[in-house]
Amino acid sequence: MATGKNGETAINMPETKASVKGTAPLLNSSKAVSTVEHPNRGVKKGFAIGDFVLRLCALGAALGATVAMGNADQVLPFFTQFLQFEAQYDDFDTFRFFVMAMGMVSGYLFISLPFSIICIIRPFATKPRLFLVIFDSMMAALTIAAGSASASMVYLAHNGNDDVNWLPFCQQFGDFCQSASGAVIGSLLAAALLLVIIILSAFALKRN
Amino acid sequence: MATGKNGETAINMPETKASVKGTAPLLNSSKAVSTVEHPNRGVKKGFAIGDFVLRLCALGAALGATVAMGNADQVLPFFTQFLQFEAQYDDFDTFRFFVMAMGMVSGYLFISLPFSIICIIRPFATKPRLFLVIFDSMMAALTIAAGSASASMVYLAHNGNDDVNWLPFCQQFGDFCQSASGAVIGSLLAAALLLVIIILSAFALKRN
Repeated sequence: MATGKNGETAINMPETKASVKGTAPLLNSSKAVSTVEHPNRGVKKGFAIGDFVLRLCALGAALGATVAMGNADQVLPFFTQFLQFEAQYDDFDTFRFFVMAMGMVSGYLFISLPFSIICIIRPFATKPRLFLVIFDSMMAALTIAAGSASASMVYLAHNGNDDVNWLPFCQQFGDFCQSASGAVIGSLLAAALLLVIIILSAFALKRN
Repeated sequence: MATGKNGETAINMPETKASVKGTAPLLNSSKAVSTVEHPNRGVKKGFAIGDFVLRLCALGAALGATVAMGNADQVLPFFTQFLQFEAQYDDFDTFRFFVMAMGMVSGYLFISLPFSIICIIRPFATKPRLFLVIFDSMMAALTIAAGSASASMVYLAHNGNDDVNWLPFCQQFGDFCQSASGAVIGSLLAAALLLVIIILSAFALKRN
């Protein structure tokens, strides 16, 4: 090619022109896109940072709820020959489900932190954000399910139900009930934070 | 204008040219956008139609759950001098909350149908879709809360809890328990559909 005849150079000329024509609009368009979307980049980055902070808060709330419920245990200071009065979280299937579910949610929130950081570094990446939205929705559902099922159980422990002769036991096991109530509040807080995170992600995914 | 002089016609000429120039690029650009985004338009429309269909299914499930729980009522065929044995949904605060919550969710799903239709007609509109995502998330949370709280109560009605002497009553009130269980299943179905709707919306909101 370099040592070609006149005819070959004449053929080469349009080739180089074509390649210049091919790259020039590509460069122009990408530059145009980056300058047009620059103000939105800050907004998206803000959404991503908010997502990360809220995720940390939700992790704290979920971990706190798990630990509070897992340690809910009270032994009354009196006992008979055959019976020791003790209340533990795993006397209640609902509370056992609560501990498992909130443990899972805490684990997921911890694992999701790197993905949230990726969203901060690359505010326009949609793949990690979609991944987060899908799993966030599932975990929010799990959190709300565990929290509200345990809430109804705690309500019953406080107030009982006269119609079916289920007696309240929070007068006797006050500390146990308090731990359980605290755990429920923590889980509902985590659930609310997860909902806010989902809505934030929807805004961040929105086309401009 | 029609009976103008030569000078006026000369002035009119550039005016009409300018208006042609003003409309031509608009038409061109809109045509270019529609031809470039045409394949995505079909996908978005598919998301929107799926959203509408799933919303109808969720409405059916939510309404069915509300009605099933609201009509859960059983009178036993024997009574004493002082007592008539009757189980009704509003003997349980959790079930009462369930009926209220599912009624609200059914109402919301009905109201949201027109917005879903707007999303079908204008697949690229983000405002109605964001509105739907936010309220869908809240209603999904409400549905899951009501469903799982009632599920824990139904579980207790079936199995009781020996540790705190809460006796099961589903042997006696079988029909009542069956209605309540059906209602819980309906609500959890509605919740699952709402979660799928939220995830679909996230995909539809995604930039291309």
